[in-house]
This record gives sequence, structure tokens and C-alpha cells, in this order.
Amino acid sequence: MNDQQALIVKMILDSWNAHIGRTHKLFEALSDEQLQKEVSPGRNTGVYLLGHLAAVHDAMLPLLGLGERLYPQLEEVFIKNPDKSGLQKPTVKELRSYWSTVNEALAKQFAQLAPAEWLQKHTAVSEEAFKNEPHRNRLNVMLSRTSHLAGHHNQLIFLQ
Amino acid sequence: MNDQQALIVKMILDSWNAHIGRTHKLFEALSDEQLQKEVSPGRNTGVYLLGHLAAVHDAMLPLLGLGERLYPQLEEVFIKNPDKSGLQKPTVKELRSYWSTVNEALAKQFAQLAPAEWLQKHTAVSEEAFKNEPHRNRLNVMLSRTSHLAGHHNQLIFLQ
Repeated sequence: MNDQQALIVKMILDSWNAHIGRTHKLFEALSDEQLQKEVSPGRNTGVYLLGHLAAVHDAMLPLLGLGERLYPQLEEVFIKNPDKSGLQKPTVKELRSYWSTVNEALAKQFAQLAPAEWLQKHTAVSEEAFKNEPHRNRLNVMLSRTSHLAGHHNQLIFLQ
Repeated sequence: MNDQQALIVKMILDSWNAHIGRTHKLFEALSDEQLQKEVSPGRNTGVYLLGHLAAVHDAMLPLLGLGERLYPQLEEVFIKNPDKSGLQKPTVKELRSYWSTVNEALAKQFAQLAPAEWLQKHTAVSEEAFKNEPHRNRLNVMLSRTSHLAGHHNQLIFLQ
């Protein structure tokens, strides 16, 4: 991997970090009461989106081949089911803690990856398929999850 | 520029194209009447976001050093001023046309850029500053504008 390649990898990681940072700041600025509200009438609550983002980011650990999920129980409530599923949710305090812990765990793992390792396959693609689809790598997961985060951030600002 | 670098450039452009595609599909699915509504109470209307995205994407032409803006008049209404500025807006029909034309103009320019040219500086940074900040390149504009688009897309879905 040459310098230019390492530069592009850094740009993508910097973009992820910037979006994590501004969304974290937004969650800190929102009270528990504000998070209970829907971002638009009939849409997801802030609490659901907080749990959803924690769950999706938690699932990045195994998807990127960087470890097991820390809170596998979040998937059922915040990924497989919608906000008004009737399933019991953790408290807002717990969800805030999960969100922070998961992002810190990711940051710790990312710091240990060499630039070239970002072009290795993610775990949802087989070795066989990866030969013909080299874009199905860790870096592509970062592009996709950064857009996902940006999308939900811009919904959460409506709670302010 | 080697193959791996060209692959990452392609991944970033594919991500942009995917977001343009799904947002275009959404605008086509929304009626003029739906676009007149606010995405959340007191927030931007669909019409404003349509004009805003057309204006921001139009400004990418000079920012990327790929030509002049096609509709410079959009900046005042849709970038410098908020939705309820009282400034006269083009019709929804006109805005739909601007949105499509601008994205087609970008696509046409992008098709002519070699992978290595994406790492060249954008026009908002000086040659001098670029020496120390090589991340201020065209590709970084694409990362930033893709997240911007993803953010507004997720607000526009509330109009459905």
C-alpha cells in the first residue's frame, strides 16, 4: 500500500470519526425527555434511533472481523423490529452507555489496523466471491455505515 | 495510481451514484403536493430540500474544477437563505429539472476523470496549503457530499 492509498483510507476513517463525533455531541445535547419524542409524527423516537445506531455499530465488530458483538441482545429490538414493536427496551441511560462503549471498542480496533488491512474482505462475503468482488472489503463497510449514520443524525436534529 | 487505489476511488463514486439514484427515485415518487410539506413540523419543506440539493450539487462543478455552475441563482435562495426567507423560489417543475440536469452534468464530467485525478486538489484550497493538506482533494468532496445527500434523503422519506 502506497502513501496515496493510505491517505484515502485515512480520509474515510476521518469522515467516520467526524460523524461519530457530531452525533455523540447531539445525543449529549438531547435530554432523556427529548429522546422519547418522535423525530417526525409517526416516525422513530430518538430512543429507538439511539438503540438502532448502537446495535448497527455493535454488529460492525463481527462484520469487520474485529471481534464479537458486545450487546447481541440489541439486534432483536433495534434492527429486526421497528420502534413500536412492543418489545421491552433498555433504559435511555443504558442505551447511552452502549452507544459510547461500542464506538470506543470500534475506535480501539481501528487503531490497530494497518491501512492495507482495510482492503481485506469483510466477513459477510466468502473468499470465493471476494475474488471477483474485491470492493466487498472493510473500507466499503465504513462508507456505507458513515452514510447510514449521517442519515439518522439528520433525523435526530429534529428533536432539538 | 495502482489497481487498489483505483478500486477505492470506484467504491466512493459507486456510493455517490447509489445515493443519487435512490434520492432521484424518491423525488420521482413524491408528488408536487407532498414536496410542499415540511419534513417535520417547523422544518424544511421538500421543495426547499430539492432546491438545496440541486444548488449544492451545482456548486460541485466549480469546486471540483469541472466547470461553471449551471444555475448560480439557486445559491441565494437555497444555500445562503433558509426555507422561509420570503425569497421567490422557482416552480417545483423547474427545480426537478435543475436537480436532474445538474446530476447528469456531474456524471458526464466524472466519466472523463482518470482515477488519479480524483486525488488532485479541489478549488477551495490553494496550491500552497494543499502541499501540507493533501486530503483536501476532489475525493474528499465526494465523501462529504455523499453524507450530505444521505442526510437529506433520510429527511425527505418523511414526506411519503
